[in-house]
Amino acid sequence: MSIDTKNSPESSREEEERARRVYTYDCTLRDGEQCEGITLSLEDKLLIVRRLDAFGIDYIEGGFPASNPKDIAFFEAVRTMPLTHARIAAFGSTCKKGVPAAEDQGLADLLASGAPVVTIVGKTWDAQVTRALQTTLDENLRMIADSVAHLKAAGRRVVFDAEHFFDGYKANPDYALACVRAASEAGADSIDLCETNGGALPFEVERIVADVMRELPDQAIGIHCHNDSGCAVANTLAAVRAGASSVQGTVNGIGERVGNTDLLTVIADLELKMGATCVGANNLRSLTSLSQYVAELCNVSVSAHHPYTGTSAFAHKGGLHASAIARFPEAYEHTRPEAVGNNARMLVSELAGKASLVQKAAMLGIDLVDANVDVQAILDNIKQREASGYSYEVADGSLALLLLRHLGKYQPAFTLESFRVIIDDREDTGALAKDALSEATVKIHVGEQRFVATGEGVGPVGALDAALRLAISECYPEVSALELVDYKVRLLDESQGTNAITRVTITTADGRGSYGTVGVSENVIEASWNALVESVEYGLLRIR
Amino acid sequence: MSIDTKNSPESSREEEERARRVYTYDCTLRDGEQCEGITLSLEDKLLIVRRLDAFGIDYIEGGFPASNPKDIAFFEAVRTMPLTHARIAAFGSTCKKGVPAAEDQGLADLLASGAPVVTIVGKTWDAQVTRALQTTLDENLRMIADSVAHLKAAGRRVVFDAEHFFDGYKANPDYALACVRAASEAGADSIDLCETNGGALPFEVERIVADVMRELPDQAIGIHCHNDSGCAVANTLAAVRAGASSVQGTVNGIGERVGNTDLLTVIADLELKMGATCVGANNLRSLTSLSQYVAELCNVSVSAHHPYTGTSAFAHKGGLHASAIARFPEAYEHTRPEAVGNNARMLVSELAGKASLVQKAAMLGIDLVDANVDVQAILDNIKQREASGYSYEVADGSLALLLLRHLGKYQPAFTLESFRVIIDDREDTGALAKDALSEATVKIHVGEQRFVATGEGVGPVGALDAALRLAISECYPEVSALELVDYKVRLLDESQGTNAITRVTITTADGRGSYGTVGVSENVIEASWNALVESVEYGLLRIR
Repeated sequence: MSIDTKNSPESSREEEERARRVYTYDCTLRDGEQCEGITLSLEDKLLIVRRLDAFGIDYIEGGFPASNPKDIAFFEAVRTMPLTHARIAAFGSTCKKGVPAAEDQGLADLLASGAPVVTIVGKTWDAQVTRALQTTLDENLRMIADSVAHLKAAGRRVVFDAEHFFDGYKANPDYALACVRAASEAGADSIDLCETNGGALPFEVERIVADVMRELPDQAIGIHCHNDSGCAVANTLAAVRAGASSVQGTVNGIGERVGNTDLLTVIADLELKMGATCVGANNLRSLTSLSQYVAELCNVSVSAHHPYTGTSAFAHKGGLHASAIARFPEAYEHTRPEAVGNNARMLVSELAGKASLVQKAAMLGIDLVDANVDVQAILDNIKQREASGYSYEVADGSLALLLLRHLGKYQPAFTLESFRVIIDDREDTGALAKDALSEATVKIHVGEQRFVATGEGVGPVGALDAALRLAISECYPEVSALELVDYKVRLLDESQGTNAITRVTITTADGRGSYGTVGVSENVIEASWNALVESVEYGLLRIR
Repeated sequence: MSIDTKNSPESSREEEERARRVYTYDCTLRDGEQCEGITLSLEDKLLIVRRLDAFGIDYIEGGFPASNPKDIAFFEAVRTMPLTHARIAAFGSTCKKGVPAAEDQGLADLLASGAPVVTIVGKTWDAQVTRALQTTLDENLRMIADSVAHLKAAGRRVVFDAEHFFDGYKANPDYALACVRAASEAGADSIDLCETNGGALPFEVERIVADVMRELPDQAIGIHCHNDSGCAVANTLAAVRAGASSVQGTVNGIGERVGNTDLLTVIADLELKMGATCVGANNLRSLTSLSQYVAELCNVSVSAHHPYTGTSAFAHKGGLHASAIARFPEAYEHTRPEAVGNNARMLVSELAGKASLVQKAAMLGIDLVDANVDVQAILDNIKQREASGYSYEVADGSLALLLLRHLGKYQPAFTLESFRVIIDDREDTGALAKDALSEATVKIHVGEQRFVATGEGVGPVGALDAALRLAISECYPEVSALELVDYKVRLLDESQGTNAITRVTITTADGRGSYGTVGVSENVIEASWNALVESVEYGLLRIR
């Protein structure tokens, strides 16, 4: 059942896809939540289940049903949730030492959760049994076999998570194999080999999984890895090559320490590069939005450089490449971004073409095709602004305003007469002073009306933001719906010291989504003001 | 020469280390700088070279000597820099089609750079030659051979970067091999196979590198990967297993799209898990500080979950594990964090231990050994300040002042009574306004004297800098020798919008060298002021 692109010419790809189904097992809600700083509410967990189910994930591990009230409530709520495909797994351990499985409270809690799948972790490293668990090697085998048999007798699908299997196998292969054989003979539906410490390398994983497959040729084997040596994805793929039929991981690879295997990257690699089927080509197109959605619920960002789903994953900048892309695009994309629902973001070089600008405009709801407009003139204007420091990579709001100005369709909501910012500091101690206070006064016009307003803030930009909102709130009360959620400052040539061109990027949320705006100036306050004004202008346009 | 831990029991590890040396080739300054949002000043690049050299990197690629004035200046500056180990490489392409190597301007520029190593990229994928380069397959072979021979004749070490080698080999193995054979026969010292698109998987890389090794058994082969399929580290290790003797990558894996191979993770894996030697166990202990240092200069953060060097890389939270760690610690760490200069729960700075603080202080000319001082109290103070947003990784000036304050040896050159900054803007057009003007007034005391001075600037920090210099110039005319050469702003929690804590880092040159200072505040102007004051204070101390 091993997969190797060496032996899979394009012509036999379809056949192979039908032949090889790799099952996906998500542990975002259990192992992922171990990640520092991530806490998911019950509602968050249910939203993630719904989304993973729609994406075509086969198994979703919900948590420890005995460990806390939130997890107990989760299993209660999820029992009545209509799922189209996924099956929910409850996670726990084998019975305790010296306790028959039928009398073990943990196993009883797992069954009481009502989850159709039960995953139990057990030890397979001899030293861990004797030193950490402090029991005999035989008793550990009894605990594994007894627990699996008990859960099977209750009619559940049982996954045995073989903790530290790879370290255990390296230390004592016979005992590690005896453990998984015990689980297998007791009826485990899948034995998932856990690379618990995350330190293994792909060639070791491939060799050891192959050894297990030889010993238990009829047993379904899964793989669970961590990324401590930077190889979690590769280790998981290596296990699949050696015959594993299911892959565990978390969305975006969240997890403690360096994180778990990123299940999304594994799925994309399996589907696009190894000819396997996990969720199918259709679902795969929502990979990027799934990645962003779960990150949002976890209150973290997807790294711009995340494989497949990051905003930069298909973006080009290299001067060496840019000229050649047009002639031979296959040379600059390892796969089509559309396959994973991402797109080749339009950086400076990519906006070089009229067609791509028209396409980008359409994504923003602006029609450049039927409009009587000189697209080349817009392109030239963008290039000129990018040369002076603007970047529209993450500033869709500013790009939309620029296009609308060219189309003559843009009526500014207000115009600036002047602003003044005063920052006062009176320092008495050498410590970090918190007493600097900023005050901003803006004078603006809306139609014939003139408004003067003053705002205060710790810093100058907060003060300007407050003053601007106050000044326009009478004419545009809807400005209160706009929330500034991110503010970035970048000096474009830092070696110019305090005279460097400053680019400020602001992200604004308006309840329906978020958008970026950009401002550029040698003066950080001026740059911030420009980005703020566009944030408000574009926000008002979206609301109206 | 293949490495496999299967055949390397602990006892033979030392022997094998001596047997297998893997060379490291850093391309942070060239390919890494392609990363969106990263711009390195000349000073930054030189600082990184110094640090990579001290870490034991073998080759450091400096940039394209012909592409821009900054890179030309870099090669000029680096030529006279005393390096203990590393050799500098200039990067470019083979000669142009139809042009003899001896008449090619690009190759002439590479030689003129004076770099002892020259790396040239050439095409090896047949379709790219005919479609992108638009020349014949034979002419491409001529370009490769002619260019390599020309550079060798000039006495340089020549690395041939075989662009798109893996895609090329999959499409037409004979032609791809013909290209690298041409480079080899012309005398290339190393042929570095580039997985340019980043989409290959480890088993493909291992097979293809092994094929090349069979064809060119006496040729040194290197590997250069990108992380688009999440396997750059594993692909690089796979190539080493197949016989590659040098590895390319960037610090922290920065690079365009998903990034390059993270050279630091590769080095740690090779040294700690594959028994190879790259920088040696001693240098490896500064892996974490190198990672943080370069990130700081790039003005990005190291992900907390970065393999080996992230702050969470060795941190545990999992409830399941915590209880067992005490009894069997080996089960919860894939390697000792000390081996890479990290620790289980730590401070990001180099100053994790008393001994290293004493050592660092000595480097700054401050003796903590004989001084009657509580080193632990200083460490605690540093940790507390780092927790509030300070970073001393690149702020030696601020660190020295902090130490001197603890020693009671520091007499401030001046004290602040107050400052006020006024930024005025009168906007008449929609274009990028240059007419915002900033004015700063500072009131300071030097001994019994009080000075009030006003400075102007385009931006507020420039105005403050001017006012401060004017105010102290009567008492400290030597302030004119201090030049502010770099100014960086970082928002520490950007999702806090305009209220985020701001860290400002300033680099100051004084004719004898340069040093960094840092300021932190919720107000960017306040943070800038703090960094400016320390820049001047430390500068005056150095001069006196």
